[in-house]
Amino acid sequence: MIAGPPSIIRVRYSDVDRMGFLYHVNYLEYFEVGRSDWIRWFWKPYLEIENAGFAIVAIEANIKFISPGGYDDQISVDVTAVEWGKSRLIFEYRLTRISDQKLLCEGRTTHCFIDTTGKPTKMPDEFRELLNHHSH
Amino acid sequence: MIAGPPSIIRVRYSDVDRMGFLYHVNYLEYFEVGRSDWIRWFWKPYLEIENAGFAIVAIEANIKFISPGGYDDQISVDVTAVEWGKSRLIFEYRLTRISDQKLLCEGRTTHCFIDTTGKPTKMPDEFRELLNHHSH
Amino acid sequence: MIAGPPSIIRVRYSDVDRMGFLYHVNYLEYFEVGRSDWIRWFWKPYLEIENAGFAIVAIEANIKFISPGGYDDQISVDVTAVEWGKSRLIFEYRLTRISDQKLLCEGRTTHCFIDTTGKPTKMPDEFRELLNHHSH
Amino acid sequence: MIAGPPSIIRVRYSDVDRMGFLYHVNYLEYFEVGRSDWIRWFWKPYLEIENAGFAIVAIEANIKFISPGGYDDQISVDVTAVEWGKSRLIFEYRLTRISDQKLLCEGRTTHCFIDTTGKPTKMPDEFRELLNHHSH
Repeated sequence: MIAGPPSIIRVRYSDVDRMGFLYHVNYLEYFEVGRSDWIRWFWKPYLEIENAGFAIVAIEANIKFISPGGYDDQISVDVTAVEWGKSRLIFEYRLTRISDQKLLCEGRTTHCFIDTTGKPTKMPDEFRELLNHHSH
Repeated sequence: MIAGPPSIIRVRYSDVDRMGFLYHVNYLEYFEVGRSDWIRWFWKPYLEIENAGFAIVAIEANIKFISPGGYDDQISVDVTAVEWGKSRLIFEYRLTRISDQKLLCEGRTTHCFIDTTGKPTKMPDEFRELLNHHSH
Repeated sequence: MIAGPPSIIRVRYSDVDRMGFLYHVNYLEYFEVGRSDWIRWFWKPYLEIENAGFAIVAIEANIKFISPGGYDDQISVDVTAVEWGKSRLIFEYRLTRISDQKLLCEGRTTHCFIDTTGKPTKMPDEFRELLNHHSH
Repeated sequence: MIAGPPSIIRVRYSDVDRMGFLYHVNYLEYFEVGRSDWIRWFWKPYLEIENAGFAIVAIEANIKFISPGGYDDQISVDVTAVEWGKSRLIFEYRLTRISDQKLLCEGRTTHCFIDTTGKPTKMPDEFRELLNHHSH
């Protein structure tokens, strides 16, 4: 397990639905913002990974919507890499509203490294070694 | 199980990412388009449900991303109500590209009826009777 | 001026803001859906244009928000090509709610053909001839 | 003219299209993020304005797309209130990529205060006085 520092997202006007709630689909978008920050923090910007001929695509996502977020909330997105294999990588997420520490959403996404032809490929050695070295 | 007629969605330019793939978050958005059509077909427009003081909020979502969609694809969204209880309702989804019948994505979402105070509430009797009557 | 057949868009739940209004940014998105249909109808799918090494990028947009749309509204998007030059192409839009024929939004976008290097380029002869031939 | 401090937005993966460019519609969304920060900085959070029974709706938008942004760019959104009347308020925007100071987009939006019935209304005295007092 490798937990990164939280990403902070402020809920935009466009992210909220007519009930005044953070529209549920956006949580999955916030997962990506947090995951992207985690990858930058732990390894390097995802852009460089793509420029090196890899992509990390989502193959599964599970989301539990626990309490509604609202417009202008500041949300802490906590991302943890929880498992990895040859080409797979699993992250877990906890989204908490900062003002009252209310847990809004939990989730888990599974990813796979692919190469430029779109086929699954082994993750770069450098990244796996980093994962294995820092795991606890 | 109550399967509705498919909804057809054409993938918009904005829905595709820099890999040329339908961005994964949008599948969850397409689920809602299909579910909304299912509710309209089976019962009545969701707008009328909200106007009557109810909302049907998502409490869980599971998505399997199987094969990438692309720009301008026409996608068939098949929605089936698979389970329901006093206030809960579970849907399953299959998204298929029409041109080659390729399965792109499968998913499942769990929903709960809430009232105008945001509290869980029993689904309207009329709707439950309709569900029980048409289930097979 | 070359007016195409209307595109019909149903306003999605995610497209509406906490006032219950169609969020203003989405009108620009609806312009693209209509423009994309116009191009398909008048010439060929935009995907084929990109596959042939061209892109048609937006360089300017003007939007007048006249009356608010709402969730589940069916909106008619009327698109007219109004002017064109060597590489430029200007469209105008009228968005009308179908149920009451209320005009919601008017707009105008200016586009430029670019090649695969991102540089402005002349529009394909075939397309310009088609434009000049059908203009009235 | 009242220029606020810049808002910084990092371009999300979902904001980029298949050309690898920041999708043009998102600039209008970034305008709102910057405008919302401007209002918070100059007056108070927009949420409080809505809670007090007002809304500030867009009635016109003009956008010039000058140079394409890309994934992971950090963009500075500079917002200036340039004109105001009894109920109207006009903002101008400049979006610049931080890494190379390249100007990506310029725009202008016109807004109108409305009350809870959706009718145009005078802006709150407190806000107009603040505008007149700080203008130069």
